[in-house]
Amino acid sequence: VTSSARRTGRRPGESGTRDAILEAARRSFGTAGLSGTTIRGVARDAGVDPALVHHYFGTKDALFAAAVELPVDPATLPPLLLAGGLDGLGERIVRTFLQIWDGTPGQGPMLALLRGAVTDETAAASLRDLLTRVLFRPLAEAAGGPDGAALRASLAASQMGGLALARYVVKVEPLASADPDVVAPVVGATLDRYLSG
Amino acid sequence: VTSSARRTGRRPGESGTRDAILEAARRSFGTAGLSGTTIRGVARDAGVDPALVHHYFGTKDALFAAAVELPVDPATLPPLLLAGGLDGLGERIVRTFLQIWDGTPGQGPMLALLRGAVTDETAAASLRDLLTRVLFRPLAEAAGGPDGAALRASLAASQMGGLALARYVVKVEPLASADPDVVAPVVGATLDRYLSG
Repeated sequence: VTSSARRTGRRPGESGTRDAILEAARRSFGTAGLSGTTIRGVARDAGVDPALVHHYFGTKDALFAAAVELPVDPATLPPLLLAGGLDGLGERIVRTFLQIWDGTPGQGPMLALLRGAVTDETAAASLRDLLTRVLFRPLAEAAGGPDGAALRASLAASQMGGLALARYVVKVEPLASADPDVVAPVVGATLDRYLSG
Repeated sequence: VTSSARRTGRRPGESGTRDAILEAARRSFGTAGLSGTTIRGVARDAGVDPALVHHYFGTKDALFAAAVELPVDPATLPPLLLAGGLDGLGERIVRTFLQIWDGTPGQGPMLALLRGAVTDETAAASLRDLLTRVLFRPLAEAAGGPDGAALRASLAASQMGGLALARYVVKVEPLASADPDVVAPVVGATLDRYLSG
């Protein structure tokens, strides 16, 4: 594992530091999961100041997204989706989800996350944290209030996890090739029902 | 690959023949998948008459269920579920699904099928065939007629695959520990909507 700075013989500068942080982050997420990882621990392992980790990557969730190479930081999605209001929220969630997955060639990072979760308990715990705390808990609380939000969030997570599984992994046709305009309204209605209770 | 009959030095009797058929079936399902396997090919590989495979295991789908040690032959489920009528079909599907999964310690065979599908294309094709042709296509046709039944079946498969993923693999709480009486009505309503269009 050689940083590009070292490969080119330059002194480790910004990109070398970033690479060292990402390597330390991947080690920590791999062994302690998303919830067991701290910015401070990653900084120590990378030999840098925690402020530098914050400076380069922002929050721990954003660091996780960068470490597993997700095309977006999932934590940015709920505020973005809720900015459009509760009307049509479910359909907007599905459209955004399909845009991100369809727009990522081979769905590499997301499939790696899903494959990891199916075979490794630490990876499963990270995905669980991502699906509930980061993604669907805020959406369920906004759509239907705090009462029973955890169950409503986990139901929504089950439908979206299943959509990923059926469309991109098991490739169940015709869902796997269906146009987002066909999928978004029908699956979106399920999400609206789950999220608002 | 040695049959137990050969291992113990006994002449192949009923259990030796059954074992030889199951071993041949596992080889074929593993390399050719569910759709690429034939009773005739399995019989040839096991050195027995095809009629004997039918005699011991019934249909190819039942042979698959026996080979991967599923607690029930999935092909027997749609007629059973439809015998109760279309009213409450979705809820009945979820209850039956949860009974089978919750009633199988560690969910071993089903999880193996799911894990296989996430990492291996042949296993994914078998699961695809199982979810559509065997399970949800007959239910979608019965619930909403032939038009668009394939898409409706694949949507139902996405929700049930996602329920398996969220409850038994990623273990998203509180869905993972929720009582079937809580899960069945709410997920059942989604299935009814998908299956009947």
